[in-house]
Amino acid sequence: MSYKFAEGEPIVEWLEALDEEAAARLAAGLRRETHPRDSVSADLAGNDYLGLSRHPAVLAAAAAALHTYGLGATGSRLVRGSTDVHRELEESLAGLLGCAASLVYSSGYLANLGAVRALARPGALIVSDAHNHASIVDACRLARGAGREGVETVVAPHADPAAVAAILAAHPGRPALVVTESIFSVDGDLAPLPELYEIARSHGALMLVDDAHALGVLGPRGAGGAAAAGLAGAPGLVVTATLSKSLGAAGGVIAGPEQLHRQLVDTGRTFIFDTALPPAVAAGALAALRLLAEGDDLRAGLHARAARAVDRLRGEGLEVSTPAGGVISVAAPGPDEALAWATACRDRGVAVGCFRPPSTPDGRSRLRLTVNVGIPADAFDEALDVILKERP
Amino acid sequence: MSYKFAEGEPIVEWLEALDEEAAARLAAGLRRETHPRDSVSADLAGNDYLGLSRHPAVLAAAAAALHTYGLGATGSRLVRGSTDVHRELEESLAGLLGCAASLVYSSGYLANLGAVRALARPGALIVSDAHNHASIVDACRLARGAGREGVETVVAPHADPAAVAAILAAHPGRPALVVTESIFSVDGDLAPLPELYEIARSHGALMLVDDAHALGVLGPRGAGGAAAAGLAGAPGLVVTATLSKSLGAAGGVIAGPEQLHRQLVDTGRTFIFDTALPPAVAAGALAALRLLAEGDDLRAGLHARAARAVDRLRGEGLEVSTPAGGVISVAAPGPDEALAWATACRDRGVAVGCFRPPSTPDGRSRLRLTVNVGIPADAFDEALDVILKERP
Repeated sequence: MSYKFAEGEPIVEWLEALDEEAAARLAAGLRRETHPRDSVSADLAGNDYLGLSRHPAVLAAAAAALHTYGLGATGSRLVRGSTDVHRELEESLAGLLGCAASLVYSSGYLANLGAVRALARPGALIVSDAHNHASIVDACRLARGAGREGVETVVAPHADPAAVAAILAAHPGRPALVVTESIFSVDGDLAPLPELYEIARSHGALMLVDDAHALGVLGPRGAGGAAAAGLAGAPGLVVTATLSKSLGAAGGVIAGPEQLHRQLVDTGRTFIFDTALPPAVAAGALAALRLLAEGDDLRAGLHARAARAVDRLRGEGLEVSTPAGGVISVAAPGPDEALAWATACRDRGVAVGCFRPPSTPDGRSRLRLTVNVGIPADAFDEALDVILKERP
Repeated sequence: MSYKFAEGEPIVEWLEALDEEAAARLAAGLRRETHPRDSVSADLAGNDYLGLSRHPAVLAAAAAALHTYGLGATGSRLVRGSTDVHRELEESLAGLLGCAASLVYSSGYLANLGAVRALARPGALIVSDAHNHASIVDACRLARGAGREGVETVVAPHADPAAVAAILAAHPGRPALVVTESIFSVDGDLAPLPELYEIARSHGALMLVDDAHALGVLGPRGAGGAAAAGLAGAPGLVVTATLSKSLGAAGGVIAGPEQLHRQLVDTGRTFIFDTALPPAVAAGALAALRLLAEGDDLRAGLHARAARAVDRLRGEGLEVSTPAGGVISVAAPGPDEALAWATACRDRGVAVGCFRPPSTPDGRSRLRLTVNVGIPADAFDEALDVILKERP
C-alpha cells in the first residue's frame, strides 16, 4: 500500500471526529457491543417465540432446498427467475394473513421500506405511532423522496386512537396512511387495532400493520394481530411481517390486495433491485408456516409462560409491561443500571435485551425479555431466578 | 370477514387508482413479471459469477451451520448475541478487502443504506454517479433525514472524474462523499477508481465504492475493484459489497477503518434494528470466501469467456458494452424489442436480464447477460446461439 496518512489531511480529521463521537457515546453510556452467544445457556433475548428455528421439519426443508437450489438466490426474482418455494411461501402467507396476495422480501426492514413508500400516495399524510420500529421510521423518511415532497409524517402518541383521529381530522381530504405495529417490539403491548382501523377507514385513510411480533403468536392458526382483531383482509388494510421471528427464518413480507402486489412488483425498489431471499431460507419459512396451523399448543404454552413470568416479576416488585405475546419489558432505574443488569445476567448465561435511550421511544431504560417455548420450563424459571437475583 | 367494499368509499378509489396506474404501465411497456426459473436451462441472468452458490464446500458449510445454529439468527446481533461464523466472516472480509474492520448486513441494500448515512457528515455534499444502483440512490435520499437537512446529493455524469472534480470544487470546505460502484451493475463497465480517488482525496472528500459486482471477480485473490485499483485500505476509502453475487450466498458488508465500524455498531440503524444474516448463510459465504483465494483459474475462465462472448456478439453486428467482469450489456432497439427478445430467449430456456426505462439510467433498453463459469462451455455457447437467433 502506497497510501499513508499525512498530518492535517482531512481524512485524519474525519477519523478524529469519529473517535470524539465514540468517546462521547461511551461517556453517555451509549456504546453497543456484540457479544458471542456461545456462552448463553438460556436465551431470553431472541424472537424465536415458538422455537421453530430448530424444528426438524424446518431444518429438513432448508437442507433439501439447499441441495436443490444451491445457497443464494443468485439474483433478483425479476431478473434471475423465481422458484416454486417463493411462490408457495407467498401463497401460504397470503392465505394465512387473509389477503389476496403477498410478496416476500429479503428482510423485514426492506418490506417496511417498500410498504410505506407504496402506500404513501402523492401528497399523503403518514400518521406513525411513536413506538414504531426503526424500519418504519426510516420508511416514512424515504417515502418523502425525490418527487414526493408532498408526503409528510406526523408522529402520533403511542397507542392513542383519539390522537390519530385528531391528526386525520386536521387534514381533511388529504390521502392518509396510519402505520402501527400490532405487538410493539419494545414493550410487547398490543395496539388498539380495531379502534385504529375504524378511525382510519372513517377518514378514508389506508392502514399498515406491522405484524412482525404477532405472526405465529396471535390469532387463528397464528395468523397475527390483524387477524386476531378480525381485520384479516379488511379493505384498505395492509400487513407487513417478518419471517425471522416466530417462523425462525429470515426475510419479510407485504400482504394486501392484488393491486398492491402488482404495484410492488412493477415499481417497488426494495423488491426489484434486491437479491431474493435464499431459497433454503424461504423453504424453511414455508415449513414453519405449515407448523403454525397445528401450533395452538405452542401458542397456549407461550401465553401461559408469559403470564407466569409477569406474575412472578411483578410479585417481586418489578414494573413489568402487560405482554400480548412473547415480549416482556421490565423497567430499569436508568441506562447504566439497565446495562449492568443485562451484563450480569449474560455473565451467568442468561441473554436478555437491554433497551436504553436513544433506542427507546420514551427515554426510559428497560430489560426486554422474550418468551421462547423452545426453552425447557425449568431453564426458563432458572433464568428468571438470575434476572431477579441480579436486579439493581 | 364482516368487512365489505362500499361504492364511493375511499378504499375503492385507492384500488381504482392502482388499477389505472397498472394499466398505464402496461400501455407504456413497463409491466414486470416474475417467471419460474425451472424452465431455464442456461442462466445468463444471475450473478453467481464463479458458480459458488452450488459449490460442495459452500453447501456443506451452510448445512453444518444449519445443524449447529438452526435456521434463522433469531434476532439482531446486538440483542441476541453474535456467532463465531459472523465474526470469522467479518475478519475474513476485512482481510480480503484490506480494511481494518467489516460489518455484515442481512442484505447489500441495507449495507448501502447504512454506509451512505454513516459517511454523510452533517452538511455533507454527496456526489453520486448517474449509474449507481437503486440502493445507493435510496441511501442518498435517506441520508437527508430528520436532523440531516444540510445533506445534499448531486448526481454526477457517469464515470466522469472531471465532472466530479468540478462539483467538489464548486463546494469548497464542505464535507463531501463521492459514491460510485466499481463494476456497474447495468453495463458491467469499470469506474475510473484511481482518478476518482485522487480527486476525492485532494478535495478532502471521503469515497464509497460499491464493489458488489467486482468482489471475487477482480483484484488479487478476487479482492474486488478497489483492491485491483491499488486502493485497498486507502485513507478515506470505504467499500461495500454483497455476499450474494460471486460468493453465491446472501447479505452485504461494509468495510473500512475501525472507527467507522464502531460508529456503525453504535448508531447504524440498518445494523442495530435488523435480524442478523442467518448463520447458515454466513457460513456458506465464509466457505465461498476461502475458495476465492484459490480462484485464479475461475477468474481467468470468467474473463476469457466474457471476452469471447463480446467478440462473438460484436462480430454479429450487435452493440455490446466492454465488460470489466461478468456483466455484458447488449443494446436493443427499444423497450418493446428488448422485452420480446428476452422473452423469446426464455421460451427457449435461456434466461437473460432485460433492462428498460425507467430502470436504466440513460433511457436506453438492453439485454443484460452475465457470465457464470458454473455453466458448461458448450451450454454457454448454445445460449449465445439462441440470443443471436432471436435478435430483433
